[in-house]
Amino acid sequence: MEKWVYSFGKSRCDGDASMRSLLGGKGGNLAEMASIGLPVPPGFTISTDVCAHYYNNDHCYPDALKADVETALQLVEQETGSIFADETNPLLLSVRSGARASMPGMMDTVLNLGLNDKTAAGLAASTGDARFVYDSYRRFIQMYGDVVMEVDHGLFEDALEDMKLKRGIFVDTDLSGDDLEQLVGEYKKIVTEEAGIDFPQDPMEQLWGAIGAVFASWMNQRAITYRRLNDIPAEWGTAVNVQAMVFGNKGNDCATGVAFTRNPSTGENLFYGEYLINAQGEDVVAGIRTPLPLTRHAREVAGTDVASLEEAMPEIFTQLADVRTTLERHYGDMQDLEFTVQQNKLYMLQTRSGKRTAEAALTIAVDMAEEGLITKQEAVMRLDPASLDQLLHPTLDPSADRHAIARGLPASPGAASGIITLTADMAEKRASQGQSVILVRLETSPEDIHGMHAAAGILTARGGMTSHAAVVARGMGRPCVSGAGELRIDSQRGIVYCGDVELKDGDTLTIDGAAGEVYLGTLDMVQPSLSGAFEIIMGWADGMRDMAVRTNAETPADAEAARAFGAEGIGLCRTEHMFFDSDRIIAMREMIMAVDTAGRQLALDKLLPMQRQDFVALFEIMSGLPVTIRLLDPPLHEFLPHSEEELAEVAQQAGVSVDLARQRALRLRESNPMLGHRGCRLAISYPEICAMQSRAIFEAVAKVAATGAAPIPEIMVPLAATAREIEICRQIIEAEAHAVQTETGQTFTYLIGTMIELPRAALCADQLAEQAEFFSFGTNDLTQTALGISRDDAASFMHAYQDAGIYAVDPFVSIDIDGVGALVKLGVEKGRASRPDIKLGICGEHGGDPASIHFCQSAGLDYVSCSPFRVPIARLAAAQAAVMAKSSKT
Amino acid sequence: MEKWVYSFGKSRCDGDASMRSLLGGKGGNLAEMASIGLPVPPGFTISTDVCAHYYNNDHCYPDALKADVETALQLVEQETGSIFADETNPLLLSVRSGARASMPGMMDTVLNLGLNDKTAAGLAASTGDARFVYDSYRRFIQMYGDVVMEVDHGLFEDALEDMKLKRGIFVDTDLSGDDLEQLVGEYKKIVTEEAGIDFPQDPMEQLWGAIGAVFASWMNQRAITYRRLNDIPAEWGTAVNVQAMVFGNKGNDCATGVAFTRNPSTGENLFYGEYLINAQGEDVVAGIRTPLPLTRHAREVAGTDVASLEEAMPEIFTQLADVRTTLERHYGDMQDLEFTVQQNKLYMLQTRSGKRTAEAALTIAVDMAEEGLITKQEAVMRLDPASLDQLLHPTLDPSADRHAIARGLPASPGAASGIITLTADMAEKRASQGQSVILVRLETSPEDIHGMHAAAGILTARGGMTSHAAVVARGMGRPCVSGAGELRIDSQRGIVYCGDVELKDGDTLTIDGAAGEVYLGTLDMVQPSLSGAFEIIMGWADGMRDMAVRTNAETPADAEAARAFGAEGIGLCRTEHMFFDSDRIIAMREMIMAVDTAGRQLALDKLLPMQRQDFVALFEIMSGLPVTIRLLDPPLHEFLPHSEEELAEVAQQAGVSVDLARQRALRLRESNPMLGHRGCRLAISYPEICAMQSRAIFEAVAKVAATGAAPIPEIMVPLAATAREIEICRQIIEAEAHAVQTETGQTFTYLIGTMIELPRAALCADQLAEQAEFFSFGTNDLTQTALGISRDDAASFMHAYQDAGIYAVDPFVSIDIDGVGALVKLGVEKGRASRPDIKLGICGEHGGDPASIHFCQSAGLDYVSCSPFRVPIARLAAAQAAVMAKSSKT
Repeated sequence: MEKWVYSFGKSRCDGDASMRSLLGGKGGNLAEMASIGLPVPPGFTISTDVCAHYYNNDHCYPDALKADVETALQLVEQETGSIFADETNPLLLSVRSGARASMPGMMDTVLNLGLNDKTAAGLAASTGDARFVYDSYRRFIQMYGDVVMEVDHGLFEDALEDMKLKRGIFVDTDLSGDDLEQLVGEYKKIVTEEAGIDFPQDPMEQLWGAIGAVFASWMNQRAITYRRLNDIPAEWGTAVNVQAMVFGNKGNDCATGVAFTRNPSTGENLFYGEYLINAQGEDVVAGIRTPLPLTRHAREVAGTDVASLEEAMPEIFTQLADVRTTLERHYGDMQDLEFTVQQNKLYMLQTRSGKRTAEAALTIAVDMAEEGLITKQEAVMRLDPASLDQLLHPTLDPSADRHAIARGLPASPGAASGIITLTADMAEKRASQGQSVILVRLETSPEDIHGMHAAAGILTARGGMTSHAAVVARGMGRPCVSGAGELRIDSQRGIVYCGDVELKDGDTLTIDGAAGEVYLGTLDMVQPSLSGAFEIIMGWADGMRDMAVRTNAETPADAEAARAFGAEGIGLCRTEHMFFDSDRIIAMREMIMAVDTAGRQLALDKLLPMQRQDFVALFEIMSGLPVTIRLLDPPLHEFLPHSEEELAEVAQQAGVSVDLARQRALRLRESNPMLGHRGCRLAISYPEICAMQSRAIFEAVAKVAATGAAPIPEIMVPLAATAREIEICRQIIEAEAHAVQTETGQTFTYLIGTMIELPRAALCADQLAEQAEFFSFGTNDLTQTALGISRDDAASFMHAYQDAGIYAVDPFVSIDIDGVGALVKLGVEKGRASRPDIKLGICGEHGGDPASIHFCQSAGLDYVSCSPFRVPIARLAAAQAAVMAKSSKT
Repeated sequence: MEKWVYSFGKSRCDGDASMRSLLGGKGGNLAEMASIGLPVPPGFTISTDVCAHYYNNDHCYPDALKADVETALQLVEQETGSIFADETNPLLLSVRSGARASMPGMMDTVLNLGLNDKTAAGLAASTGDARFVYDSYRRFIQMYGDVVMEVDHGLFEDALEDMKLKRGIFVDTDLSGDDLEQLVGEYKKIVTEEAGIDFPQDPMEQLWGAIGAVFASWMNQRAITYRRLNDIPAEWGTAVNVQAMVFGNKGNDCATGVAFTRNPSTGENLFYGEYLINAQGEDVVAGIRTPLPLTRHAREVAGTDVASLEEAMPEIFTQLADVRTTLERHYGDMQDLEFTVQQNKLYMLQTRSGKRTAEAALTIAVDMAEEGLITKQEAVMRLDPASLDQLLHPTLDPSADRHAIARGLPASPGAASGIITLTADMAEKRASQGQSVILVRLETSPEDIHGMHAAAGILTARGGMTSHAAVVARGMGRPCVSGAGELRIDSQRGIVYCGDVELKDGDTLTIDGAAGEVYLGTLDMVQPSLSGAFEIIMGWADGMRDMAVRTNAETPADAEAARAFGAEGIGLCRTEHMFFDSDRIIAMREMIMAVDTAGRQLALDKLLPMQRQDFVALFEIMSGLPVTIRLLDPPLHEFLPHSEEELAEVAQQAGVSVDLARQRALRLRESNPMLGHRGCRLAISYPEICAMQSRAIFEAVAKVAATGAAPIPEIMVPLAATAREIEICRQIIEAEAHAVQTETGQTFTYLIGTMIELPRAALCADQLAEQAEFFSFGTNDLTQTALGISRDDAASFMHAYQDAGIYAVDPFVSIDIDGVGALVKLGVEKGRASRPDIKLGICGEHGGDPASIHFCQSAGLDYVSCSPFRVPIARLAAAQAAVMAKSSKT
């Protein structure tokens, strides 16, 4: 017979915390606390299986449920010595939802269930405290009316206010027992009028009503939305916790409070919390009365003189402090507790892992490991790699008042304020005058790089998580909100429309790149500070990793930042970014405008020394670490301007007629540039470009090796689909290597490999590996081609796709394991089959995404490469992936 | 010990025709003829392995070659009774190249090798025919000087002309023996002056010089170009044939000729050929003397009275006629022969399969099968499916004088003449006035469809073999040359620049869509005629096929044409083509401009009856055969105009402001439309479009089923990458099916399936098959995404790619088996694993390409679908593929 109901209490405990998926977080932890002897009011949990049964069977419960609940209820009666629905000594219950994960938006709590006219009267008589009883009764009616019977709770509040007005008093507690009994009558009338039926007087009917409301709320709109936003499957379902009431509001020997076993904000190992004498749980949270500090120390720090719990109820405090120690030892984690003191007796109502800031999480993990509560491995496993982002960037002050005027994608973390600036040139100019600038563009292109660098933050109206703006901003560590679709930008008039709001060039904005939000004016920020715990955890993580972590970087600034964050090499240096500097773009355009090889060579000769210097700088910074250099990748038209005036300028610079320039630009135009004349196709059409870049690399190697650590360049052929393409490029590269070695008299080692970014490359990886000494999986483009989604255009349907459950996560953010992942695995398998010592890495944006890094571990890659600011995240995620892989093997 | 040299002759025959790859076509057939007792002058073949050795070993021969050649030479000496380099009875040799496939551009022939001053004098003395000997000697010096020593052959011809001038004669044959001996002296002087060395007098040195020249010519530029154009691998190499000379020019009892065993033009079973008395082989071909007919019948038909061979040399003719029969029986194919009669003795110098017209090929195959020379299967296997194209379209008269002014891709076969017309509207107008029009565009788009339909032929400056122009033209059966990159079109001034030529709107052009060439003026055409043999062969082929053949069609005209060509259903009906008609595009644009679902619905309501009528027409034509209908596929911006004026018109039609229309158009614009908001992404964003199309289909089914054969619609969800996308569309489609069934009271069957056109769809085909009852592999888009090549942009590098050997064949023409093919095979395997009875087909352009059809057979597809005019090709190719599959199994 299936078990639907799990009791907890002193006499019997059916569950424990490991049964979270069956009992929910709350139910599992109540059972766990009871089973280790902590004072938990008895109760029972109706499992999530009942929820599943309910939704799979047309909102019907399992047949056995009624009897099981009644049996469990009897156990609670026995333990409490009170009887449900009894008129003199009635058992009162709380009913709470409790899903596997915390789920705001669901029905939360009904308290004091079991009260009706008769039990209230009896209880008032037996306790002699009518005020307490009718206050509890009216609270019950309000909660039950609101969440179970869908009566607007404002009506109850109005009635309460009316009563106080009538009595001429201001505070609820000044109402007498009679007042409250009268209020109960009015509340019941409200229910009858609004719900069309009377407030139920049968306690058992009340109980089933509350249970039903919990299950029904699992499918309300707010819960559905929350689940979608937090990737919680609907199948999980919720449990229902039914528990004997205890009261913290029965007098001055009663209290209620919440506590964290350590400081959730800093992580300091100090007991931290708040309490109120003679109050119910809600009162602490609701802020009607100011809660008091838990410890004397906290009171002293706060500089108040109202007694802490430690001083007011020293015995209770000692018990609670013991509970704190017990729970931390038991769970091996910082806990968030709820407790109630009823007539000098302590009851634990809840424990769960406490939410904490990223900084606190680090400190707690390190401290606990050093205290011996957990192992170093557990410390590393416990951290959310994505949360490290908070530590590396300024963030909005959580207490800052904020109202977003527009939303986009959280493209690059951190917050920034600055004045709206609509062109890259203006951004550079204003920044050079010391102004903080937010660069606002429809979308960005490589021509905007200098402006992006100068800006404090970047905001675009178009483009996804891997749009140009997003990728470059993450690389630079600039906050960025991309794809804020509500924005309309009128560059000519210098106006940005944002719904009804009209913003002008020069107005001040703040963006939160972690939240994807845009605010008017300047908001307060919190500056990042890296604690010692960060370095300690990173050190532990590095010891656990299988995969190396490299960075995607092409500027000295990025390379230096990445090394400081622990990068072990460059996994992707995009050489095209080096051609957009104002002095270089001219030579680049000359090359594009050239009508023959000789003309191209002339322009390339100008670029060679600049490109060589780029590599010298990178090699020096990386001092002997591997540097993967990708040959020129984008289609040539990306280097040309769009307007007629600019084109005339280009023609002049390149020394050709405007007509010829226009024709050349027209010829270069493509329907689908993503699938056009780019990557190694350029090297094959114009071998001299590949030769110049190869020569620049090798001359830089020779130069740096002469004075320092010998660089190890890994030259990467982009967009190859066939072995032959790599072979052709290899011939050009090797010829240059040979020439430079002869000229300099030096010998040096280097690798030639390819980027696997087309499905065919993965499918034919065995052939490609015959020509390639390494593969770097370019999962951005691989995602675009495998899924047939242009990342620049995906915004128009990706939201609808996620809503419809087609892609649970944006596949440009977290690797699509079934599709793109299958290609990566094929590529790895076939590549290694053909060249067992092939070096395998990933350099797409996924290289900095924890879920994708776990996939990379399972696929057997040698390294991941990501933006500088994601290097710590990748180090931690790679360690976690390695630990999980080992534990799943044993 | 490896064998490098293969003798042939009466006494010994080392090879046969099956050793074509080792001996080349010519060498194999000489050995074969000798071995079946035909009179072949003895000789030997130096194998293609020697060529490979030569190129793999720095132009050195195998060590054993010299001795092997000498041994083989002795055998020739024995059989001919003459001695190489002997001064009185010298053996003279011919040296010819002979590759596996016919290879124009290589060194062809050196005759009379072995002559020098001494052997010539000796031979003149022994034969008493100095004129013949010195004529042979001077011919030898000229040929050898030209092809081995690289002396300009014009110099020899000048010397000959000078000599004739000096002697006051006009015909070569009037020169005396003395004249010719003197000419030999001058020829030798020319060689010494030009080559810097004397003409070699050592016959053995002459022999090795000629052999070396054959091998060297394998890598000359013309040969390389020819191989590239004809997909011949360089590794094949060439053989060298060395053979005893026989002379058809030793007197009036000598002759030489060429013959076909049947008429190569019509296929008629009549001996066909030409000959000349007292002449060498070259004379027949060179056209200096007019060759005479072989048979009396041919002479009578030609109406001449000079004797045919049958009349002039009846005994020889009888022997030759026997040879004809022997060879046809032996080879089971029509042969192309070369023969020489030396002093009343017949020698066979060559036999090979005769080239023939497509029509002749059909007739010969059918006749031979009916004569019992070959089986029906052999008849079917022998035909080149691609050649059927010639039979279905008008072609240029082969005798027409032609000079191409521009070249592009052979995008759609057939030839057409007409006046240059630059817009679709003008094309329609002129065509309606009875003018023949060539529509000339930079590229075409769906808006041009009406103009393409009205045009006699289509010429574009941009776009590949599967560009819009090419695909649509093939579907319509219109000749098309696409991607003629030399063209520059100035639409405003109505001028088309083609290199230096300036063409005006209204000038007349002719295009040859099978050759991809463009000519000035009107050229003569040959109209197609389908012989009875065509139907017979098609009938045989149909009996051998495993795969069904369907067509890609959406207009009644195309559907009817395809059925006439034997299509067994529609494999792809592209519904978007139905929305471009001038009365529909307005409603379509209204829908696009609609700001909400209600507005869209209003426009869709207008489209519904039109769309329904489209399907009614198709269902009626296909009367019960399956019809695969693809839901709307292209991005919506394809339905919008580009210019500001046209946009204003659209705004007016749609009843919105120009500003709103412009904004909407701007929002729809995409960076990479190929990977954008299209396919089922439209159905998911705008379910009402999918609903309208589904309703139109089902209402049409109900209407047609009421009076005729029940249609079987197969509704195809385009561009799916996930099962969930199909599931969502399925819900919409099924709801409409249910509604129409309820409304009409009819029940009908239909299938819902998907197009596999993204790599992810193939990789996850097991998941997709859970939602899809059929897969149609859309290998056009699958090629674009798997290889990362936009077919609209590929022209800029695809030629360079083919030249560099990266893709041997354009992957849009013939399926890339390693990459795209791997995905198709994965899709088939996974699809069947998950749904064993899943229906599998292909509807990309590859469905009409014979090589790709062979792949489809091996992949296990159920059907191929192609343009109407390719249906016969597909039927034949599918039969061949099935036969080959069976024979490879046994």
